[in-house]
Amino acid sequence: MTRFESATEIRALPEAGRYAADLDPGYLIGTAMNGGYLMAVMQRAALAEAAHPHPVSSSYNFLRPAVAGPAEIEAVPLKSGRTVDTVRATLLQDGKPLVTGHIAAAGLESDAEPAYEAAPPELPPLDRCRPYDPRRGRVGDGFLGRVDQFYTERTWRRLRGQDPEPVPELIGYLRPSEQDGGAPADPAAFLPIAVDALPPVVTVFDSWRWAPTVELTWHMRALPAPGPLAFRATCQAVGGGWFDENVELWDVKGRLVAQSRQMARNGR
Amino acid sequence: MTRFESATEIRALPEAGRYAADLDPGYLIGTAMNGGYLMAVMQRAALAEAAHPHPVSSSYNFLRPAVAGPAEIEAVPLKSGRTVDTVRATLLQDGKPLVTGHIAAAGLESDAEPAYEAAPPELPPLDRCRPYDPRRGRVGDGFLGRVDQFYTERTWRRLRGQDPEPVPELIGYLRPSEQDGGAPADPAAFLPIAVDALPPVVTVFDSWRWAPTVELTWHMRALPAPGPLAFRATCQAVGGGWFDENVELWDVKGRLVAQSRQMARNGR
Repeated sequence: MTRFESATEIRALPEAGRYAADLDPGYLIGTAMNGGYLMAVMQRAALAEAAHPHPVSSSYNFLRPAVAGPAEIEAVPLKSGRTVDTVRATLLQDGKPLVTGHIAAAGLESDAEPAYEAAPPELPPLDRCRPYDPRRGRVGDGFLGRVDQFYTERTWRRLRGQDPEPVPELIGYLRPSEQDGGAPADPAAFLPIAVDALPPVVTVFDSWRWAPTVELTWHMRALPAPGPLAFRATCQAVGGGWFDENVELWDVKGRLVAQSRQMARNGR
Repeated sequence: MTRFESATEIRALPEAGRYAADLDPGYLIGTAMNGGYLMAVMQRAALAEAAHPHPVSSSYNFLRPAVAGPAEIEAVPLKSGRTVDTVRATLLQDGKPLVTGHIAAAGLESDAEPAYEAAPPELPPLDRCRPYDPRRGRVGDGFLGRVDQFYTERTWRRLRGQDPEPVPELIGYLRPSEQDGGAPADPAAFLPIAVDALPPVVTVFDSWRWAPTVELTWHMRALPAPGPLAFRATCQAVGGGWFDENVELWDVKGRLVAQSRQMARNGR
């Protein structure tokens, strides 16, 4: 079992729809658990309560930070349909809700050809990208050891503030870290963490700051083929203390596998 | 009072967090209430339970269609914070939950200048666009009388299937219909309906079909100045019976005021 798989394990409790988890401190960013990791844990509980296998649409509100250690997930089915099951999942610590979300599960077919798909960005091969994270050494490197990240040269310059006209677009690859045993058996299980693993896209405008996510919605569009995921992160507006961050992921076959958007607070 | 304002009125019930609404049949599309209209009604109940005034981030899951007539909204505060209040809102008819969502409310300043904003699309003035809706006469025109819509020539051709290489991008303007009394006193109240008022963007690929929304998330980015909203609707992928629809709205000053994405089923 990879570290990702054991870190996202859940255990059914006697009460219906209740699950226990033990949040792995290796997924901490500073003193708070990474949101993508929390979504990955909550997703397992939600899918355990659904008849359909794939988290086609998931939205999460982050109410309060979670710490490492024991947590509970409450998963309440709201709808059981022929095509879609909808489950409400809430992560609690000490009885207090920290993250709550709705997961709509459905069945996606492997190798289904899309009727339409916008072109992915052009990327050099992974071995011509730079492994990089601007947070290294600033907030501890717990989480940085969990997800291997590779940036194009241009993205690397942007993250270092070396782009004369900063454009909020980050491009590269990511994958579950090889030091943790690589990809989980189910590559779809990694998607929630993949959409929330990058440094905040607003880093291109300024040095990195704490950017707490208020809401994140992501959609699974296809079953990812095994291998690293290409990513593009963009932002449409920064203002009033808020920014949006949009992350798209493509598998090695060039298929769009996930789309996400989050609303986050811009530093403090 | 405009028709939009009276159609979205809510009345507090004796039980805490409970509100009554009377869903206006004028917002029906076929036999189901328009989702944007339902969000506008639910938002009023959610904001009544929040200390902050603006629905900065809202996500909704559409479980079952709603019909015209009496409905109840249950609004449960999940978090009351210095910057953000989060409320869960559920719309019920006959005691059955039909739509559920989370609204994160915060305060946006009018006339706040964005630190960054991507450029809006280029648009001709409204009076050089065509009022048009391809659904007219197909599913009844109840809803079509509620929202005035104007399309660029190119969008108009696309919606009629006259684009030799169909591109899922619709551009134009929309506003509360003048026959209903025009804009509400609070222009932000109209945003939830504005992000879900257009014909499905996949219309460009095929004749119009029923496209039920499973999930819709929208973010309010700025207080809209009074006047029509410019829109752009796009889609990144269609496949496996699903499509995404992304709608962005700009006010007359060219300020991005809302971003939305929905996951919907593609015909049946």
